[in-house]
Amino acid sequence: MKTTLREHIAEIVSFSDEEFVYISSHFHYKKMKKNQFIIQAGQQKVNKYFVIKGILKSYYIDKDDREHIIQFAQPDWWITDYNAFFNNKVATINVQCITDCELLYISHDDLEKLSGEFHKMEHFFRVKSNAGYVASQERILTMLNLTAIERFNNFISLYPNLIQSIPKYLIASYIGVSREMLSRLSKNVTNHTK
Amino acid sequence: MKTTLREHIAEIVSFSDEEFVYISSHFHYKKMKKNQFIIQAGQQKVNKYFVIKGILKSYYIDKDDREHIIQFAQPDWWITDYNAFFNNKVATINVQCITDCELLYISHDDLEKLSGEFHKMEHFFRVKSNAGYVASQERILTMLNLTAIERFNNFISLYPNLIQSIPKYLIASYIGVSREMLSRLSKNVTNHTK
Repeated sequence: MKTTLREHIAEIVSFSDEEFVYISSHFHYKKMKKNQFIIQAGQQKVNKYFVIKGILKSYYIDKDDREHIIQFAQPDWWITDYNAFFNNKVATINVQCITDCELLYISHDDLEKLSGEFHKMEHFFRVKSNAGYVASQERILTMLNLTAIERFNNFISLYPNLIQSIPKYLIASYIGVSREMLSRLSKNVTNHTK
Repeated sequence: MKTTLREHIAEIVSFSDEEFVYISSHFHYKKMKKNQFIIQAGQQKVNKYFVIKGILKSYYIDKDDREHIIQFAQPDWWITDYNAFFNNKVATINVQCITDCELLYISHDDLEKLSGEFHKMEHFFRVKSNAGYVASQERILTMLNLTAIERFNNFISLYPNLIQSIPKYLIASYIGVSREMLSRLSKNVTNHTK
């Protein structure tokens, strides 16, 4: 599965060829290998990444060295450390490639510049922020409210592609159950492991 | 504590008096009593509320009738069912006044109309969505990562005003501990109850 930035933006707003050439000149291409990092905790400046190909995870490492998954990203999605990106702060989380990835990234300054130059780009990024905000609120509700089996089923319905392509222990971390519990939950749903 | 919409918007973008008269004509004033609802689960259309005065909570009632707090709001904050508002869906959560409140609200259509008519309003609402997105991601991290005492201290530092003005059982629900546990956590921090 592979997607283009132009198709992705055109779902919300459209630009002429000339405008799009100018807009896309603010994005930069990056090819990354499985396990490589695009953001590491402590980093001074972070970019925002659009996924063309591959799967990534953002996660936080706590003081006991446990990994807490915040978000997965697949083609057509955006990923970054949102607090660091929007507020120009030092990164507190990591974003790592789960598979080989192809990405486009934009800096904070260039995103703000494009949003200022094109009302339509400001609209596009507002729609994306709204969607991210809603998804985060849904996740909070999921964490407060659903049982382990409900969280697992919810994960499958939200991310049908991911369930086949990421290691089970990451799904267990995301939905907040032990690996053993996840095996029990998933044994009737899927028989692929990775 | 009381705030005005104009001061609030002017923190991010500025408008002439004429522009602001036009913009504010899309907002409507509502005075509500303690315990009244501004949004109820099942409602067809929801508005977005700006708090002039008072404190509100948004919460979800699960199938076992337990209340899960999603967000509090105090003067200068916005509150709604974000999924219902942004995606024009039926409300799944409730928003209720904890104290007597004064509010300004705007409909989804009017927010989109103003965002289309004024690039600066689109920018304003994007900045607000970014802030909401970041706050939600921080809350997810808090839930995944912090102990009860850390969540309590985090709550105090994020919401110093709220700790004095809302019932303790709501704080317990928000940070995900029992009421008894909260009493133990708070006995050295505060001696006011309500």
